[in-house]
Amino acid sequence: MSLHPVLIDGQWRTSSSTSGFQAMNPQTRQWLPDQFPISDWDEIESAVSAAYKAFDIVRNWPGARFAEFLEAYALEIEQRIDTIVATANSETALPVEPRLKGGEMVRTLNQIRQGAAAARDGSWKQPVIDTATGIRSMLGPIGPVVVFGPNNFPLAFNSIAGGDFVAAIAAGNPVIAKGHSSHPHTTMLFAQAAHVAATATNLPPGFIQLIYRTSHSDGARLVSHPHVGATGYTGSRKAGLALKEASDRVGKPIYVELSSINPVFFLPGALEERASALVDEFVGSCLMGVGQFCTNPGLVVLPRGEATESFISAVGEKFAAAPVGTLLGDGVATGLKQAITKLQEAGAVLVTGDSAADPNRCCAPNTLLRTTGADFLNRPDAFQEEAFGNCSMIVVADDVREMRLIAESLEGNLTGSIYSATSGADDASYDLIAPALRQRVGRLLNDKMPTGVAVSPAMNHGGPFPATGHPGFTAVGIPASLRRFAMLQCYDNVREHRLPAELQNTNPTGTLWRTISGQPTQSDVPA
Amino acid sequence: MSLHPVLIDGQWRTSSSTSGFQAMNPQTRQWLPDQFPISDWDEIESAVSAAYKAFDIVRNWPGARFAEFLEAYALEIEQRIDTIVATANSETALPVEPRLKGGEMVRTLNQIRQGAAAARDGSWKQPVIDTATGIRSMLGPIGPVVVFGPNNFPLAFNSIAGGDFVAAIAAGNPVIAKGHSSHPHTTMLFAQAAHVAATATNLPPGFIQLIYRTSHSDGARLVSHPHVGATGYTGSRKAGLALKEASDRVGKPIYVELSSINPVFFLPGALEERASALVDEFVGSCLMGVGQFCTNPGLVVLPRGEATESFISAVGEKFAAAPVGTLLGDGVATGLKQAITKLQEAGAVLVTGDSAADPNRCCAPNTLLRTTGADFLNRPDAFQEEAFGNCSMIVVADDVREMRLIAESLEGNLTGSIYSATSGADDASYDLIAPALRQRVGRLLNDKMPTGVAVSPAMNHGGPFPATGHPGFTAVGIPASLRRFAMLQCYDNVREHRLPAELQNTNPTGTLWRTISGQPTQSDVPA
Repeated sequence: MSLHPVLIDGQWRTSSSTSGFQAMNPQTRQWLPDQFPISDWDEIESAVSAAYKAFDIVRNWPGARFAEFLEAYALEIEQRIDTIVATANSETALPVEPRLKGGEMVRTLNQIRQGAAAARDGSWKQPVIDTATGIRSMLGPIGPVVVFGPNNFPLAFNSIAGGDFVAAIAAGNPVIAKGHSSHPHTTMLFAQAAHVAATATNLPPGFIQLIYRTSHSDGARLVSHPHVGATGYTGSRKAGLALKEASDRVGKPIYVELSSINPVFFLPGALEERASALVDEFVGSCLMGVGQFCTNPGLVVLPRGEATESFISAVGEKFAAAPVGTLLGDGVATGLKQAITKLQEAGAVLVTGDSAADPNRCCAPNTLLRTTGADFLNRPDAFQEEAFGNCSMIVVADDVREMRLIAESLEGNLTGSIYSATSGADDASYDLIAPALRQRVGRLLNDKMPTGVAVSPAMNHGGPFPATGHPGFTAVGIPASLRRFAMLQCYDNVREHRLPAELQNTNPTGTLWRTISGQPTQSDVPA
Repeated sequence: MSLHPVLIDGQWRTSSSTSGFQAMNPQTRQWLPDQFPISDWDEIESAVSAAYKAFDIVRNWPGARFAEFLEAYALEIEQRIDTIVATANSETALPVEPRLKGGEMVRTLNQIRQGAAAARDGSWKQPVIDTATGIRSMLGPIGPVVVFGPNNFPLAFNSIAGGDFVAAIAAGNPVIAKGHSSHPHTTMLFAQAAHVAATATNLPPGFIQLIYRTSHSDGARLVSHPHVGATGYTGSRKAGLALKEASDRVGKPIYVELSSINPVFFLPGALEERASALVDEFVGSCLMGVGQFCTNPGLVVLPRGEATESFISAVGEKFAAAPVGTLLGDGVATGLKQAITKLQEAGAVLVTGDSAADPNRCCAPNTLLRTTGADFLNRPDAFQEEAFGNCSMIVVADDVREMRLIAESLEGNLTGSIYSATSGADDASYDLIAPALRQRVGRLLNDKMPTGVAVSPAMNHGGPFPATGHPGFTAVGIPASLRRFAMLQCYDNVREHRLPAELQNTNPTGTLWRTISGQPTQSDVPA
């Protein structure tokens, strides 16, 4: 068996491991030919050592150095676009167009360049200068970051090209990327481009590294290693919780994005006003990408009545009529079926979804479930099981007051949406539900489905547990996402020439925003 | 046994508990007469319910409402200063002057008023408005906060008057204060003042509450309760880790400040240049407050040589000659003796500290220990045992390179100090040690002892684990400390009249700083 090499300490090295794995083509359920190594602990530890050494070299580099790498990396990726998207398509079944090439790749390049701009600008470090006391502080890099990418965005959240990677690098940290096992070849292509760019921009060996897979116990050892600064993880709740526990035990920041069912509340006036448009909007959002978005609307809450029954019938018909998309892999298909079974065991009833699935590809029928508000409130935990994929559950509440109780019984989510009448007829109901929902979601939407996560500086792709591990941070949105991979570094009475440039009296760029004596400013420290 | 009541849901209630405790006067080792309840779970849960209800009421209040409370509270405290400091003196043995009245009380009132100003100003929420996408976000209150105050600052870190309390309230959260068992009466006096102020400023019942003590298991249940938003804890490592584990398991932010030995590095040129001044500075800092500061310099690293031996002798003599202060309680004295024994078992040698302690008060001799760099590097964990109190350990390194290795072997600390020659003679040594120390401490000092934590907007009273649980946050410094008790709240396509005032087009105060389309500004959103 010939295994692809790993990228460690500036070299593509033959893995010291003898065990390997292959990815599956979800469209055919055939194994793809390339073999990738499952790294052993020695190999993982050598990556940590190299990252630690690299960090010591770059610790005080200006952000412009990291920006140069990111910009060079974007150019290298642009030379490989067609290969990367074709490979990602074979590993994930996501369509080349409009998804991979015109969508995710554009976003990926955009994120990398936004990260470069943020690194160059430096304002994300939030420098604070208190001239009265001689104390100055800012956010500084936290040290080597481990990035575990998810299965569902092979480009834009790829462990060595996506949002967490960009944020960690732009903040000045080496990255050890742990590729997702479902798209190793795609990840390898990115890593090749990154390695060329890193070499061309004179980054130290060990600044960017890639391993493909580890055992669960080695993953836990890695994230809790004394020389690791922080970890970014997006993926399954079970694996993420194990990593979180290991990191928490040694007090290392870990940013996990675990699961979210993204509740959508339809208020009576909205249904009355524009039911047919809402059906289309919901079906489109729910089945897009075969429902494999972190922000997929998995729970819909409506008030009992004829309009709701019509809505459910119409959605059910469209689900049944829509083509059945190919899922990312057998694991996703199996997980989806198990979750649907659990929801049925809890008492949910199938509206549609009992057709047979094509055994020659990874898939499951478009599935719509329903239950009552009373049943939901009786077992809120059971009904909040995430069914990742082309599935959603409808909860028919007795009235708006029960909708509020449902909102109060929700776990933390990335998003929560409320649709209301444009006339204002739903405003009292909105005011009842919105405060409870607000506290339980990272992003509150009005009259809009949660899928589509703009890379906006105001975006919050985060939320209370179990959506993420800390509701104060976002994984998307630059520069805010950089702040996850930073520590607060204070300088007390430190001689001026020893301060980082951002904290010296002269504004190092002339455009850096700093807070001096309580006021944001781009000026120098007054003489 | 007559137990003092607890403050729950807006009332001073007879505790439902039948078990109680008393504080000790450390100056006499006599129990003080007042009895305070150990709350049972029902009582604790009723506090959580009341806080949850209160939060629903205040969720959208402008910061000015919380500012009014804090300002009224400061006035109420000012009417009780003499009683509070006299009580604190009897419970902690800290002197009324200069410590309690002229020092801590002034700081406490200052913090409360700074918190009020930050709440009124609102810029701590860091509003971000992206007009291109219609997405807006800011930090918002996280929900009921539990505050566990420490033993060593009965006023400035008091659970119902200190830094964490102020930060949580100023951020708009109800607080459930869990008083420290060593100064319940002091805490009760603050709570009485707070209750009067809360009533006068029309805060809902349940917004501020006080319990005195819980079992360890009930403490863990409390911090992980679904209706609790976050926890602030300052205290012992063992109890703090148990609470952290409980919070981490349910993904609730908990800000723990656990232990710190605050390493101080003296470089050769500094010793040569001003040894006698350094002796005085170190002895003063180490014995101040009987060494009972989180930032007490507990570890001193020097290069081998005559100057170092003279330094050690001089410090040892001053330690032996200095009056032996009274510790906060028997627990502190016992813990200190145990830690010294552990350090000796690891191989540290007593320079001074073998005199007998006065059995009629809580105390231990001023203790100085020493070891070699080689021994330290051989067992770095054992030598980093925190000896909380009037004790410090000196590590004599072979040379500056070994000092760097020691810096690299350190756990996370609140502070790290480096003393160097004013001539620049130590600059190369500084450049060797500072980067390693920088990454392991929250606050890096030059030529200054770490005790004395200014309430500056640039202060970082935080640091990597085990100093705290997350190196991105500070417990001191306003407005930064408020951000611990907040969640990132994003609004996507939300109708303008439903947005919080801080995110609407018109700047609500005219002075609020917001980032609009990437630029900090006090202007309205352009039409």
